[in-house]
Amino acid sequence: MKQSQLFTKTRKEAPADETAKNAQLLIRAGFVHKEMAGVYSFLPLGWRVFNNISNIIRDELNKSGALEMHMSTLQEKEKWQKTDRWSDDVVDNWFKTKLVNGTELGLAFTHEEDIANIMTNFVSSYKDLPFYAYHIQNKLRNESRAKSGVMRGREFYMKDSYSFSKDKQQHEEYYEKMKDVYMNIFTRLGIGEQTFITVSNGGSFSKYSYEFQTVCDAGEDVIYIDEKSGLAINADDWNDETVADFGFETDKSKLREEKSAEVGDIYSLGTKYSEALGLMFNDEEGKSQPVVMGSYGIGVNRLLGVLAEVFGDENGLVWPESVAPFQVHIISINEDEKAIGLYNELVKRGVDVLLDDRDARPGQKFADSDLIGIPHRITISSRSLENGGYEYKKRTEDESKIILPEEFNSMFTR
Amino acid sequence: MKQSQLFTKTRKEAPADETAKNAQLLIRAGFVHKEMAGVYSFLPLGWRVFNNISNIIRDELNKSGALEMHMSTLQEKEKWQKTDRWSDDVVDNWFKTKLVNGTELGLAFTHEEDIANIMTNFVSSYKDLPFYAYHIQNKLRNESRAKSGVMRGREFYMKDSYSFSKDKQQHEEYYEKMKDVYMNIFTRLGIGEQTFITVSNGGSFSKYSYEFQTVCDAGEDVIYIDEKSGLAINADDWNDETVADFGFETDKSKLREEKSAEVGDIYSLGTKYSEALGLMFNDEEGKSQPVVMGSYGIGVNRLLGVLAEVFGDENGLVWPESVAPFQVHIISINEDEKAIGLYNELVKRGVDVLLDDRDARPGQKFADSDLIGIPHRITISSRSLENGGYEYKKRTEDESKIILPEEFNSMFTR
Repeated sequence: MKQSQLFTKTRKEAPADETAKNAQLLIRAGFVHKEMAGVYSFLPLGWRVFNNISNIIRDELNKSGALEMHMSTLQEKEKWQKTDRWSDDVVDNWFKTKLVNGTELGLAFTHEEDIANIMTNFVSSYKDLPFYAYHIQNKLRNESRAKSGVMRGREFYMKDSYSFSKDKQQHEEYYEKMKDVYMNIFTRLGIGEQTFITVSNGGSFSKYSYEFQTVCDAGEDVIYIDEKSGLAINADDWNDETVADFGFETDKSKLREEKSAEVGDIYSLGTKYSEALGLMFNDEEGKSQPVVMGSYGIGVNRLLGVLAEVFGDENGLVWPESVAPFQVHIISINEDEKAIGLYNELVKRGVDVLLDDRDARPGQKFADSDLIGIPHRITISSRSLENGGYEYKKRTEDESKIILPEEFNSMFTR
Repeated sequence: MKQSQLFTKTRKEAPADETAKNAQLLIRAGFVHKEMAGVYSFLPLGWRVFNNISNIIRDELNKSGALEMHMSTLQEKEKWQKTDRWSDDVVDNWFKTKLVNGTELGLAFTHEEDIANIMTNFVSSYKDLPFYAYHIQNKLRNESRAKSGVMRGREFYMKDSYSFSKDKQQHEEYYEKMKDVYMNIFTRLGIGEQTFITVSNGGSFSKYSYEFQTVCDAGEDVIYIDEKSGLAINADDWNDETVADFGFETDKSKLREEKSAEVGDIYSLGTKYSEALGLMFNDEEGKSQPVVMGSYGIGVNRLLGVLAEVFGDENGLVWPESVAPFQVHIISINEDEKAIGLYNELVKRGVDVLLDDRDARPGQKFADSDLIGIPHRITISSRSLENGGYEYKKRTEDESKIILPEEFNSMFTR
């Protein structure tokens, strides 16, 4: 894309009321627009990153056998009354609205009740199980405070998967597999090294559940990392029994304590929702049984914020290659014709390129390039051409070097 | 995909309260789930079609120079008060909700105010114009009645584009181009022949606007088609002046009268929203001017319904190749091994294939295949093999024929 076509502009300052580093950088670089506290719109650059993140998640989930679907924001009261999650006394962050005729509706803060109800149409026998579904969709939560930028919002995007199994054993096969699937996702997103499978409380069905925590100063959690096993434990869930069950060091001081942000979780729901919503099947003996469900979440907005927090530096955003809005940023310093030639060449190779063809000072172009955070920068100027080629710099490195046209020919090939 | 993995099942009957053909077929075939009147969730097959439609729209809009973004559902009162569109007396189909602290919020029924406000951050000079943005997103409208299946809902997906120009002339360049872009989209979706650019009332800025009307029994509009010019006129807008302006036949009986569904519209907004929201720029003389806006809508849910209505027959859905959930449906009649071989071969060629590997009677498999409406069906049975190959049938044709393995080799290549 040519930057002259990109209507967003970078800003020197974020809005005064925006205190989170992630939102400050994302707003200044023109990735998101703050609608109100906890509500952000995605501008073209941010939407490209959002889709790159989502597509990595999709790819790994599709490989796991899950199918994508999409549910509604508007929710009927009756389904949520069945699980006693309708009342504002029980769930304190509902947004509610009303039909013209006065019927109360909820705005989905999650979708367990909805999906369990949908599946009653399709499950009757143990032969229909197991199966797996997911959706990537906005959720609305009426948080009384919203202060972590795009990491915790009143309107935000989640990937939620659900598994439907005939018994605990069948459930656990997929549940265990999800640990690897999730770590593959976070590794592909560039935060594999910073992300730890973290033991957390389970519910009535399973003693433990697992969170995926990314070490990050802006995180709201504290974890203790056991370097030997690579596992972590959420500080909230630290107790002798858990420590023993997982063989953690009993001496906290021997573990690495870090602030972290939860980027995902996997949870055994058991039969709570299937019993309430009537999601039953006939087992091998013809006996009616409730389906065993699992839920598996990943916060897509949260990830956008975590990536900005973890990799962003004093000059701006720094995107991992897998999710960057563009792979290469070409900066033309009064060498538009050569720059366009290079741009066309890379586009032909299937590379996502942003070409800074704006009528702007070099300093402005370099500062904007650092702020936007595209992994590879190529500058074409009379000076670079005198030196025999193009000036190449990685966003993660301070030094640039001259690459010759013949070197360039073998770069960014797929 | 193997059908054993697809958790949805076909149904003999649609819900009793569902009267629209489109929703009856889409529900029976497992494409959508009815949440409540006017609210549908997308099941995996429906979500595949939704994305195929969206991606064709995206492709054509990207080529026009527009950039994709994504806005919020939650909307602040203040922006909508500026255009006098907050009050329920003015806009009667708002869904509203409240923050915990009592602040009223709206749930976006459209996004003109939001996007005009966002762009105030990025426009200051005539040099910033023109530019083009679009989003594909759900809208919530508190309709008192919802009766046309997925074609008119309380929650539904729209593609909305917006253009931002410095004057009427610059505006009209993109506006005129959109007529072709839209017709390209509808042609690629398979309804080019049935869809007519239809003259309709404009507003204060332009005398006329244009709708894109698809001839369809379930449509809520009536149009008069002038076969000579290929243009149509909305019956609501028939008057002597319009007839004269466009050179239509003055005798209605010489025009083709059809029921039709509006699948898109392009509208000159003028400076209504930019003036109200303060979206101003300095022109060549340094004088502050309001930006000239245009809006361009396409109903994605509406299209899904129109495609079901226009092409569906007594046996079920009939998808155009460009949007079908899969290109090829392989039916195995007790020849699973050969069927899987064929499936793997097509997948390797990059073809989207659904393989019916279920343990079900042939009659059930054929009926389901017709109901789901995949364009090409290949049956492998002992009989087809005795006849030297596979039985091939198009969904749009009654007769099947035997294709030999060597013929198959050159089919469905990209």
